[in-house]
Amino acid sequence: MNQLGTLYVISAPSGAGKTSLVKALLDQDKQVCVSVSHTTRGMRPGEVDGKDYNFVAMDQFNSMIEQNQFLEFAEVFTNKYGTSQVWVEQQLALGLDVILEIDWQGAQQIRLKMPDCVSLFILPPSTEELRKRLTGRGTDSDEIINQRMSEALSEMSHYPEYQYLVVNDDFNAALSDLQAVFTARRLELSRQTMKQAKILAGLLSE
Amino acid sequence: MNQLGTLYVISAPSGAGKTSLVKALLDQDKQVCVSVSHTTRGMRPGEVDGKDYNFVAMDQFNSMIEQNQFLEFAEVFTNKYGTSQVWVEQQLALGLDVILEIDWQGAQQIRLKMPDCVSLFILPPSTEELRKRLTGRGTDSDEIINQRMSEALSEMSHYPEYQYLVVNDDFNAALSDLQAVFTARRLELSRQTMKQAKILAGLLSE
Repeated sequence: MNQLGTLYVISAPSGAGKTSLVKALLDQDKQVCVSVSHTTRGMRPGEVDGKDYNFVAMDQFNSMIEQNQFLEFAEVFTNKYGTSQVWVEQQLALGLDVILEIDWQGAQQIRLKMPDCVSLFILPPSTEELRKRLTGRGTDSDEIINQRMSEALSEMSHYPEYQYLVVNDDFNAALSDLQAVFTARRLELSRQTMKQAKILAGLLSE
Repeated sequence: MNQLGTLYVISAPSGAGKTSLVKALLDQDKQVCVSVSHTTRGMRPGEVDGKDYNFVAMDQFNSMIEQNQFLEFAEVFTNKYGTSQVWVEQQLALGLDVILEIDWQGAQQIRLKMPDCVSLFILPPSTEELRKRLTGRGTDSDEIINQRMSEALSEMSHYPEYQYLVVNDDFNAALSDLQAVFTARRLELSRQTMKQAKILAGLLSE
């Protein structure tokens, strides 16, 4: 397949700022899109089918699993969430980079199915800062905050499985780092050979 | 060796703007330095030993060759030029990225000795633009310009041996591309694991 885009797997603990960083990247880089997951959970007020999620019935989701249509999927309580392989490959074929915002377990599934994917992990600058970010408005109990911290630490323990690490201390610096990874990947020989085909043909035809 | 920096090999035909781009990168990125070659040719007015070149006698140069001290070397007419391996490794150990501005032949030698090096090729945007840049002030004969074009085309024919391609159409865009490669490489797991050791230890010690 003449695959022009790159698949990115981005993981982070809650509180690292992943969602804001990805949103800011999408705003400034029109060659990137983010994967819209399939889910069996009900639509919430304000959500748009096909934009926030692709909402499907449990039957349909299960038959997609049987047909091996998901790059990765997970069950959270009684709901299922998954990333459609066909959808991702269509975006890549259009030349778009596709971001999957998933956890370390999803990332492991993706690496098996799409070994050329690029994986990136976002870290908070310190435990203190992370706790501050997870404390939120101060209305949650210590127990809940400790539970969030424990989940964040568990997610972070998987950072060595990723190709790139970005520390989100200063938001703009982290955004600039994230952008650099996407820009640099587009300058790799294989992608440039396709993108600059005309220039290369012209230069070497003399 | 605890090698923190990355060795970059940058090649380009004359007229692609390599020297100006590298100079601008050095101005804005203090983690980068450019290799100072050893040479047997005489010092010219205004040149500084150790800055423009390391000027050495032919005997010394030949004995460095015998002791396998060069990452690459070349003979141009009666003069020799080479890149000292010890010097490069010292800069890398200091955490600096080192740029070698060399041609495709030097690049091939470097890849054999330092397989972890990153190689990048800079292209002009078109043959017309290249000819314009190589024509200079219009005081050179067609023969000389054709000779320059022919050398440029010969150098360019080696672009597929490089990991990254940058097209220098707009100078600032090309500089930003170049910077992205250097920034992205620093975000790779192996380098971040060293650079962010303290943060990582703190985050995972809970």
